[in-house]
Amino acid sequence: MATATDDVDVLIIGAGPAGLTTANSFNGSRLRVRLIDIKAAPLQVGRADGLKSISMEVLDSFGIGDTILKDAQPCEEIVLWNPDPKRDGVISRTMTIPDRVEELGKAREVTLDQGQIERVMVENLYKHGSVRVSWNTQPVALHTDLSRIDDPEAYPSTLTVQNTETGIRETIRAKYVVGGDGAHSWLRKYLKIGFSGDLTDSTWGVMNLVPKTNFPDIRKVFVVHSKVGTVMGVPRENKLVRLYISMDGGTRHTSIKAQNIAPEEILEAAQAILAPYTLEASRIPWSSAYNVGQRVADEFARYDRIFLAGDAVHTHSPKAGQGMNTSIQDGYNIGWKLRYVLEQKADRGLLSTYQSERRPVAQALIDFDKAYLEYFARKDITHDEFLDAYLAGQAFTTGIHIQYPPSLLVRPVSTKSQPRAVKLAPGKRLPDFQMVNQSDAVPIQAYHRFTSHGRFRLLVFPGDLSQGVTFSRYIQLGEWLASSLAPSSGLEIITIHAAKRGYVELLDLHPVFRPWSDEEGWDYWCVYADDESYHKGHGRVYERLGISKEEGLLVLLRPDGYISLTCGFEKAGSLVDFFKELKPKSRTRPGATGGGRQSNL
Amino acid sequence: MATATDDVDVLIIGAGPAGLTTANSFNGSRLRVRLIDIKAAPLQVGRADGLKSISMEVLDSFGIGDTILKDAQPCEEIVLWNPDPKRDGVISRTMTIPDRVEELGKAREVTLDQGQIERVMVENLYKHGSVRVSWNTQPVALHTDLSRIDDPEAYPSTLTVQNTETGIRETIRAKYVVGGDGAHSWLRKYLKIGFSGDLTDSTWGVMNLVPKTNFPDIRKVFVVHSKVGTVMGVPRENKLVRLYISMDGGTRHTSIKAQNIAPEEILEAAQAILAPYTLEASRIPWSSAYNVGQRVADEFARYDRIFLAGDAVHTHSPKAGQGMNTSIQDGYNIGWKLRYVLEQKADRGLLSTYQSERRPVAQALIDFDKAYLEYFARKDITHDEFLDAYLAGQAFTTGIHIQYPPSLLVRPVSTKSQPRAVKLAPGKRLPDFQMVNQSDAVPIQAYHRFTSHGRFRLLVFPGDLSQGVTFSRYIQLGEWLASSLAPSSGLEIITIHAAKRGYVELLDLHPVFRPWSDEEGWDYWCVYADDESYHKGHGRVYERLGISKEEGLLVLLRPDGYISLTCGFEKAGSLVDFFKELKPKSRTRPGATGGGRQSNL
Ligand SMILES: Cc1cc2nc3c(=O)[nH]c(=O)nc-3n(C[C@H](O)[C@H](O)[C@H](O)COP(=O)(O)OP(=O)(O)OC[C@H]3O[C@@H](n4cnc5c(N)ncnc54)[C@H](O)[C@@H]3O)c2cc1C
Ligand SMILES: Cc1cc2nc3c(=O)[nH]c(=O)nc-3n(C[C@H](O)[C@H](O)[C@H](O)COP(=O)(O)OP(=O)(O)OC[C@H]3O[C@@H](n4cnc5c(N)ncnc54)[C@H](O)[C@@H]3O)c2cc1C
Repeated sequence: MATATDDVDVLIIGAGPAGLTTANSFNGSRLRVRLIDIKAAPLQVGRADGLKSISMEVLDSFGIGDTILKDAQPCEEIVLWNPDPKRDGVISRTMTIPDRVEELGKAREVTLDQGQIERVMVENLYKHGSVRVSWNTQPVALHTDLSRIDDPEAYPSTLTVQNTETGIRETIRAKYVVGGDGAHSWLRKYLKIGFSGDLTDSTWGVMNLVPKTNFPDIRKVFVVHSKVGTVMGVPRENKLVRLYISMDGGTRHTSIKAQNIAPEEILEAAQAILAPYTLEASRIPWSSAYNVGQRVADEFARYDRIFLAGDAVHTHSPKAGQGMNTSIQDGYNIGWKLRYVLEQKADRGLLSTYQSERRPVAQALIDFDKAYLEYFARKDITHDEFLDAYLAGQAFTTGIHIQYPPSLLVRPVSTKSQPRAVKLAPGKRLPDFQMVNQSDAVPIQAYHRFTSHGRFRLLVFPGDLSQGVTFSRYIQLGEWLASSLAPSSGLEIITIHAAKRGYVELLDLHPVFRPWSDEEGWDYWCVYADDESYHKGHGRVYERLGISKEEGLLVLLRPDGYISLTCGFEKAGSLVDFFKELKPKSRTRPGATGGGRQSNL
Repeated sequence: MATATDDVDVLIIGAGPAGLTTANSFNGSRLRVRLIDIKAAPLQVGRADGLKSISMEVLDSFGIGDTILKDAQPCEEIVLWNPDPKRDGVISRTMTIPDRVEELGKAREVTLDQGQIERVMVENLYKHGSVRVSWNTQPVALHTDLSRIDDPEAYPSTLTVQNTETGIRETIRAKYVVGGDGAHSWLRKYLKIGFSGDLTDSTWGVMNLVPKTNFPDIRKVFVVHSKVGTVMGVPRENKLVRLYISMDGGTRHTSIKAQNIAPEEILEAAQAILAPYTLEASRIPWSSAYNVGQRVADEFARYDRIFLAGDAVHTHSPKAGQGMNTSIQDGYNIGWKLRYVLEQKADRGLLSTYQSERRPVAQALIDFDKAYLEYFARKDITHDEFLDAYLAGQAFTTGIHIQYPPSLLVRPVSTKSQPRAVKLAPGKRLPDFQMVNQSDAVPIQAYHRFTSHGRFRLLVFPGDLSQGVTFSRYIQLGEWLASSLAPSSGLEIITIHAAKRGYVELLDLHPVFRPWSDEEGWDYWCVYADDESYHKGHGRVYERLGISKEEGLLVLLRPDGYISLTCGFEKAGSLVDFFKELKPKSRTRPGATGGGRQSNL
């Protein structure tokens, strides 16, 4: 039946947020990557809409954050409403909370239609041309040759895929497969991976509408608890508002079938909760009702050759706005790791960190979601109880509290070697910050600069370079880097110094910090100052990150913005060890084919 | 010969910056507008590159500022180099000046290839679909029926246009014609409009290159005076640098022909000036040499039916980066006026302000350019002389000092009626500022909000609405506006109050300030606070504009962001007079055809 064959480094199934993020991680790469989706075209409208700042940083690193932001609606304030006992239980505003997390220094969340976000991501794939995208294409069979899985050059998986329009089949041999094929994942089922959790579902209505209302907080994030239920609202682009309503009063084990719920019923439920305020819809461009399942897959990976990401391995309520965001983070995690292993011929062993890093996050999300959902559903919840839950949720959903466990990629800090007062912990994400370009004085956010190119970055914080001692230490580091580390590691080295910019001349610095290229001359985009900008204030990077200007700091950053290790200048040798351990282990000779059979099962 | 005919409200000749700005002024309009250009497609590469912030505000009002900014290079610092007498005349850095004008509160200039800017403007026309664009099309004949020019409904001009590929001709009858057809304007010549000025040209080389150099300020705006000449450099997007070099040492009446100058000669001239620093070009994607002519057309308009804009009516050196910027401002000026006259059936007399406003600006530009060019060309100029000239130029080129003369559209302030301490003068442009949306707390820049829709805006600065007196005065104004002015004037009313946002409830305000629509409910985008934002600081609008929080102020803003009049709340009646005088005069009955012949000649 098969009429064509293709050999690819990576085959991605599913062009939702998880698959598209995985795919965008390969932009600019020369690897062979394919993305297939059963749909005929990118998603048009609906589904999720909230992008946490951590997801915006991912999109920034793909170069499309600005495009998204141009049309998105920032969420700046959250307002809580509760029954007022003094007014016979009529709802009244009990609190306005800034939707802000100090550590982020920017809006925590913006909203935009998932369809539009996906289309921008697809356009970006087309623009770079590194990934081949096939619509109308589904997998029908998969065979993995277990005798080949340890051979880095082998294509152990053979997939048969079928065009849903023509019926024509194709055989694709893949080194790696990523399944981002959603909650009903074909791949998960095919691999018979357990998807355990709460199978009895709670029913929710979701609706986008252009409202006509006298409810005063309609353009904020609002949570209204009334005697008859709870509604949550989120402001959206283009005058839209998104409403979430529990259709079964939050009871579990409900018999209400989501597909039987009409948009009018959702609107009526909202109207009842918001009374005495009025609410009408002049347009309802999208609405949906669904039964929430809270499940996590037993495995996120097989043989470190086949990976599952996004809804394929975790589902939960949309209340905390984590569906799309978590899927993006999954895709971002597996994307760079595959690229790194393939491009740098690194140890395949690092791929096991995908499951060890992402499964606990999914599990924590489900636990959080369960508690959160109950807070939404309960009618007797007090203002204070809800507030506590909300703030806990906020801390969780920003992602700034996630810390990946120690592994090949995350090196715990030995307290001895660690400079004082550092707020940057290995396994945590580097917070975004503003720095000022040494050469042209332009201020830039870190994740705008830290494009997704699949390589590690060494962030050098030398301290105040106008000080002689500091400057010589920095020069010495430069010499050492040039001779030992820089040539082989594929590292990108970025300096963020703490002197006034005017005291530093780029060309006085060691060339390793401003690399020369015969094509383009000196690189003017590797040295930055933690200094006042002309129009956008001062990033205060050293202060915010807790870095001493006297001692300085080295931060080894993974391609996904998570910190591998931090160390003082005198411990720079640990960088060499780090990269040594990423080299393939002797069990397979690099480049050898048909190496010894050693299944990870 | 003519094979087709078309009737249009406005025919625009030339899709350069002037014509494209005029055309974009009609986005969202239902008027019939056509844009023709002799080129086969939008400009691909080269020519101008500097966008002053005043031009960025125009692009913001078209909704494309962000798209431009995403790829543009901000210019933050200017560096001057001069011969060092102590070092035998070797060039040395004599000064670093922030490229900043306090009043702007943002980068004064960004650079991006003119081709890319034009393509974004063309895409925006396609997106809105309000203007029909015809490439490969040039005018070959024009006839204007002088007996019809005073009839607002007439199409007095008949143009024959020809497709340059097929040779097919078409007859277009137009109410109005705008010629943005460049320095060699067909329309200007056809109308035999004098183009007087300095006809003996000075020769300049211009070049875009990716440099390989050890010159330390290559990513800043730099002006290097050496013993052998002057070079000016401007940082550009994509690692490019733009260089300007006088090829004749600044002598006028030169015999050097621009077309004989090869790129190598331009590069060699730059190398000689920058020595002992080295400069090589790894790529030269574009370069050009030309003879500067400094000319202003005698007339910018005929019969208030035919208008000329941009290079068609003024040419000068590119040194001050004013070619594209002035053309954009011309187009923005005539664009809204035509739209206003046509859509609001206003007095055609206001069209005469196009020439009275823009010709003096062009004349001042030429005068400035002459002086400026000589400063560049002179070899004996001192650092201080040059600095003075540069700063004078900076003030001029930002446009913030331009003040249009009194007219139907600009009403001088009688000192009696004017509240104290106002920095806003009629005829001047409203400076951009940040305000915070009352309803969703999102901070926004004024010109992002003030989209180009061809209608006047009334900016209401009521003061601190948490004060009872202030609040009642504002309510009263609302009642008056609702009954007298708002319904007929097509005004958009924007409030910027000075209370803490939390003290104000949108729905407590008079509905005229937050209009109701049966389609979309209340309008949440008309009331703003001059308040702290969560992530972007405080706009300090009242302070910056010199508005008293006690007295408040009304500012009537033209669609192009220039101020028509300002008055205190007690003088709001002057608004009624203003709009009364924009009504057509009795000499032609509105809507009448074939009205009395009354040429403006
Ligand atoms: C009705 C609805 C409303 C939602 N509302 C919210 C919300 O308000 N907030 C929130 O955070 N989340 C919400 N979600 C969840 C959110 O949309 C998901 O969490 C998110 O899309 C998951 O991303 P993903 O890439 O893992 O999977 P998906 O987005 O589901 O993408 C899977 C992709 O795989 C493709 N695919 C599936 N099977 C195959 C196959 N066999 N072969 C090839 N391709 C295949 C699909 O066509 C799809 O493009 C909602 C989901 C739904 C269904
Ligand atoms: C080589 C060069 C370098 C320059 N460098 C700079 C610089 O560095 N800085 C700077 O500020 N300015 C520079 N300029 C000037 C700047 O490009 C112009 O000031 C600006 O483009 C003027 O805009 P415009 O719309 O008035 O005219 P143009 O941009 O010239 O546009 C005129 C349009 O009309 C079309 N057209 C012409 N004749 C006809 C016809 N008969 N029928 C139909 N269409 C017609 C043309 O195809 C063109 O699209 C440069 C110009 C040139 C030529």
